[in-house]
Amino acid sequence: MFREITGFSNPLVKRVKALRDKKARRLEGLFLAEGLRILTEALEAGRTPEMLWFAPESARHPLVEALVKATETGGGEVFVTSPDILSKLSGKDNPGAVLGVYPEQWTPLSALDRGTAAIWIVAERLRDPGNLGTILRTGDAVGAGGLILIDDCTDPFSVEAVRASMGALFTQSISKATWPEFIHWLRQGPGQLVGTSLNTDHDYQAPDYAPPVFLVVGNESQGLPEAYEADCDLLVKMPMMGKADSLNAAVATSVMAYEVLNQLRKR
Amino acid sequence: MFREITGFSNPLVKRVKALRDKKARRLEGLFLAEGLRILTEALEAGRTPEMLWFAPESARHPLVEALVKATETGGGEVFVTSPDILSKLSGKDNPGAVLGVYPEQWTPLSALDRGTAAIWIVAERLRDPGNLGTILRTGDAVGAGGLILIDDCTDPFSVEAVRASMGALFTQSISKATWPEFIHWLRQGPGQLVGTSLNTDHDYQAPDYAPPVFLVVGNESQGLPEAYEADCDLLVKMPMMGKADSLNAAVATSVMAYEVLNQLRKR
Repeated sequence: MFREITGFSNPLVKRVKALRDKKARRLEGLFLAEGLRILTEALEAGRTPEMLWFAPESARHPLVEALVKATETGGGEVFVTSPDILSKLSGKDNPGAVLGVYPEQWTPLSALDRGTAAIWIVAERLRDPGNLGTILRTGDAVGAGGLILIDDCTDPFSVEAVRASMGALFTQSISKATWPEFIHWLRQGPGQLVGTSLNTDHDYQAPDYAPPVFLVVGNESQGLPEAYEADCDLLVKMPMMGKADSLNAAVATSVMAYEVLNQLRKR
Repeated sequence: MFREITGFSNPLVKRVKALRDKKARRLEGLFLAEGLRILTEALEAGRTPEMLWFAPESARHPLVEALVKATETGGGEVFVTSPDILSKLSGKDNPGAVLGVYPEQWTPLSALDRGTAAIWIVAERLRDPGNLGTILRTGDAVGAGGLILIDDCTDPFSVEAVRASMGALFTQSISKATWPEFIHWLRQGPGQLVGTSLNTDHDYQAPDYAPPVFLVVGNESQGLPEAYEADCDLLVKMPMMGKADSLNAAVATSVMAYEVLNQLRKR
């Protein structure tokens, strides 16, 4: 059964729209995802929304029908609404056909099974939600296990990060820790901690990477703190042939991740 | 000699602020760049602003002093203004210490010397200014010669693109062409045209790339049109181990560019 919601002042509209703010997300433990592609990725990863919103125009789309069915089976609520209200909820002029409200999922470090993947990504004080989402997307592509956020990172459940992840938010585990907590956990088992750094001449293609490899990416403007670099097993650097001395954080992480993947698939 | 400008309604403030819009940029042939790091990169690439704006607080910073001197030597104007006006000009709450107004530079295809670099990047209908700027930044890092924009791309001189390029906008040549113009020019000399595509199983590490290599990146959601793919000498694909079938456009371009660079530096 669908509920039809057509009023802008409906409290539910306000409540869902509020999830674009971090405070409301933390309070409710919920976040927004938009668009058929991302919601279908979520479904394929076994995640159904608590609320599914769509406009009547999209009702007969087979992917929307599949989402509606799965949401109902999963105990979620389905709302039919106007394109205008969808716009308001998503904050975009051209909203996607669907919008879903999902429970945030944080995986405690203690619940991570490092043996399930050869690559893990560790992000330290990453500021840009587009970078964070893009790193999740690359993580999915290289078969990484998940993303571990260190200290004060941008929120992975923000609308911008979810959008940039293109659904990888639903396939990658997301954890959160302080650096000492992370290092303590890491050293209880196998794991090669690899940082990219400007403070080294060690070429990123020189080492034989030993999985599970934990790739650390630091803050966009400051990089990793020196004390954290000292905790790494390896510091490496990509060749820089131009005037600049650094790459975009998501690019650097992705180039590193493909190097590790390329080594592993040749063995 | 500095001019001091303190009034928000000063016509010059309005004119410079208007450069955040594409229409005004095309009309004036000028664009904005912000921040000491980017303006200093520009200076090192031999580019001085037509106008340099800074707040009195920054006057004694040696990099600002160098910029002031170079601007005056280059025949540009220097303006001292308040942090509030700098904010207004840059559209950011925390503006950089300096803001420069530069002439747009487009390099005609006919003026490109393909022999000067082993890698060139070709972007087709790229939509996202952050992606475009990030691709310029990677281009600088891999020693690319420049970026060729095909059909209707996002503006490389937008504030967002300039910011994401981190100054690479000043070190990379920027050209613009239709696809037929580009192909006509390309085939007049050596050049391997390489597209990344989902319509191939050819692994991106399999070919021996032959410089000058022209790496084509297509529109973020649609990729390259089939007819353009047919014009490529090679279509290749990065391995995708996860649920998703694609990477962020700037990431895919960067992973490709580093593969080509890695091959070349091993020869």
